[in-house]
Amino acid sequence: MHCDASCPIGIFDSGVGGLTVARAVMDRLPHESIVYFGDTARVPYGVKSPDTVARYAAQITRFLLAKDVKLLIVACNTMAAVALPAITALSPVPVIEVIDAGARSALAATRTKRIGIIATPSTIASRAYERALTTLGGPGVHTASRACPLFVPLVEEGWLDHPATRLVAEEYLAPLLAYDLDTLILGCTHYPLLAPLLARVVGPGIRLQDSASAVAERAAALLAELGLGQADGRPGHAFHVTDMPLKFREIGERFLGRPMGDVRLEEL
Amino acid sequence: MHCDASCPIGIFDSGVGGLTVARAVMDRLPHESIVYFGDTARVPYGVKSPDTVARYAAQITRFLLAKDVKLLIVACNTMAAVALPAITALSPVPVIEVIDAGARSALAATRTKRIGIIATPSTIASRAYERALTTLGGPGVHTASRACPLFVPLVEEGWLDHPATRLVAEEYLAPLLAYDLDTLILGCTHYPLLAPLLARVVGPGIRLQDSASAVAERAAALLAELGLGQADGRPGHAFHVTDMPLKFREIGERFLGRPMGDVRLEEL
Repeated sequence: MHCDASCPIGIFDSGVGGLTVARAVMDRLPHESIVYFGDTARVPYGVKSPDTVARYAAQITRFLLAKDVKLLIVACNTMAAVALPAITALSPVPVIEVIDAGARSALAATRTKRIGIIATPSTIASRAYERALTTLGGPGVHTASRACPLFVPLVEEGWLDHPATRLVAEEYLAPLLAYDLDTLILGCTHYPLLAPLLARVVGPGIRLQDSASAVAERAAALLAELGLGQADGRPGHAFHVTDMPLKFREIGERFLGRPMGDVRLEEL
Repeated sequence: MHCDASCPIGIFDSGVGGLTVARAVMDRLPHESIVYFGDTARVPYGVKSPDTVARYAAQITRFLLAKDVKLLIVACNTMAAVALPAITALSPVPVIEVIDAGARSALAATRTKRIGIIATPSTIASRAYERALTTLGGPGVHTASRACPLFVPLVEEGWLDHPATRLVAEEYLAPLLAYDLDTLILGCTHYPLLAPLLARVVGPGIRLQDSASAVAERAAALLAELGLGQADGRPGHAFHVTDMPLKFREIGERFLGRPMGDVRLEEL
């Protein structure tokens, strides 16, 4: 394989959620080409076993490496939480993921070191955020976490500000609010779309933190360090999915905040 | 392949939902052995494309035929709606499915011939229930349908009587209630678990109809007709899934209303 500054960045997720990360990368690195992969046939990943998620993640990693990417971004908290060893074992190029970036951002934002995490059942069960937060933040960090399995279907349904969504959020978040947190990590790339509603539920004393801009920042720093940044020219953005390309584009353009062009259907 | 009265019945679904059908078959045919397959790695099917659902359905059909089943029961409305040709093309044994059975039951129950259907987006988009109802019931039948994508995640979360579930149900059902229906088909095998809540939302004037007992009745009649019924002896029940066998057993025993024994993990 060849690999120079003109090569694309590979970004992948179980579905459309990772487009919140792709958007941040496009905003921060406007000349970089991107190859995005969304496994829309097998979404959601957050309720699958670690073995199954690792097997699927390895298939996607091979697909993107065959596109000569210079950097891989795991834009799916569930894959980052349970499949990172499977991905890095295959990849000769650097791998950035959302959990490390999200944990660093939360530690930079918190004043009281009392940090909450909401995510899919698989991500929560892995305790990956807790490990990252205590490793990076030391023993003074206190965490509390909650799995929110209904948030992804609610976002996919487009019910971002529905009374039912508010009831679900109140139920999920009530136990966390007892912990006197000052920062809440949105540990799933779908959740930033619920941020306005979640902010109303948790109130002004808790700051919501997602990983998208932190990941983009980390990608910019790493490419500069490696001398692989693309400083000018018009980038190409390619999108690959395993099912329903038209629905992906329709929902995806809402996530991406810009037109998407062609979306190609792939069988893994 | 051999095929006699001692062979099992194959029942399959995208996940646990089809166990409502398995339960009805166990109740109606207590001496029949059953091989159940739930594709828990790739659930939900109701938001996938017809091509993808047909590809997965063919894989499951091959798996069950290799177990020497004497009858196949498609206990998943989405597969019945969009993948039946793919299944019957592969199967040398008879195939029974939930949509035909559900439509017949609804037609037997209705007095006004005004019938509503709630189901997954794929089932609704296929218009399979409308076709079955007008083919079997003639031109006097009026139908109204609504996709309810959040019901499966809510059942999987176990929120069968939660205020949020009630709000979601009210929103989904409101447009149907304008049609002066007397019968509402629960066109997804997860939905019978929501029946008490749905009955309160639609009120006493509308009868809820699911397919489970109709499918079991049809299976009994067909086996008798073919001389393949098993009239005595202790049956064997085997369960196969593609992910999370322990979670399947935990939720599944609630669906099945009895202990389940071993659940085997398979890779398709």
